[in-house]
Amino acid sequence: MSKDLDETDRFQPRFDSSGLITAIVSDARDNAVLMVAHMNAEALRLTQETGLAHFWSRSRQALWKKGETSGETLEVTEILTDCDQDVLLLKALPQGKGAACHTGRRSCFYRRLDGDRLVFTDAPRLFDPKTVY
Amino acid sequence: MSKDLDETDRFQPRFDSSGLITAIVSDARDNAVLMVAHMNAEALRLTQETGLAHFWSRSRQALWKKGETSGETLEVTEILTDCDQDVLLLKALPQGKGAACHTGRRSCFYRRLDGDRLVFTDAPRLFDPKTVY
Repeated sequence: MSKDLDETDRFQPRFDSSGLITAIVSDARDNAVLMVAHMNAEALRLTQETGLAHFWSRSRQALWKKGETSGETLEVTEILTDCDQDVLLLKALPQGKGAACHTGRRSCFYRRLDGDRLVFTDAPRLFDPKTVY
Repeated sequence: MSKDLDETDRFQPRFDSSGLITAIVSDARDNAVLMVAHMNAEALRLTQETGLAHFWSRSRQALWKKGETSGETLEVTEILTDCDQDVLLLKALPQGKGAACHTGRRSCFYRRLDGDRLVFTDAPRLFDPKTVY
């Protein structure tokens, strides 16, 4: 891997052919991974400017302020990048009810793989998605 | 989003058009995000069978047992998936010197964004990449 990417202080986010970079959000308090989404340059700029996580919705093909509908915004405390600068890691303080997932759970990662089946963890729903969306 | 994906116990990993799914590795002890890589179905199967993380290297276009060269293997304790099943989260116990990153650091996320520059965190190098690779 090029030293141009991994030992530099020059930020060179490697957006993919669609202009997007993968963004992981973890809870700044305990590092729990909450969600994964994508950012374009504009979403990243807005996140830095406002301190609230913005993404690019691939399904809606639109800029997306996280929590705009649900109130479940994410206050970003730190943005890190990885050695080859093709992933961002946002550390955030969840606002609202603290449910980053559209299902109303704290984290999108609420099922673990057991063989070829998924087992639900005991993550409670912090809101009812039927009343929010 | 379809209930077929987010409230089911049926595992339907959404591999992309290259047959790959994004896999995040976090430390099972404290949730720190260590690295992000990609898996194809074979890498996932080998990970489940052996308990050690396997990925697909996009740069080398080859199956990749993490730590095969460096000794920095990852003992996977749990595999989770997210609501729409297009990301995996591996919880792992790092073996070897505990450096998941090829630069010798514990985590690939050793730089934070400050404006348009990167600032190195104080993550030490646990091995010297020049002597390992």
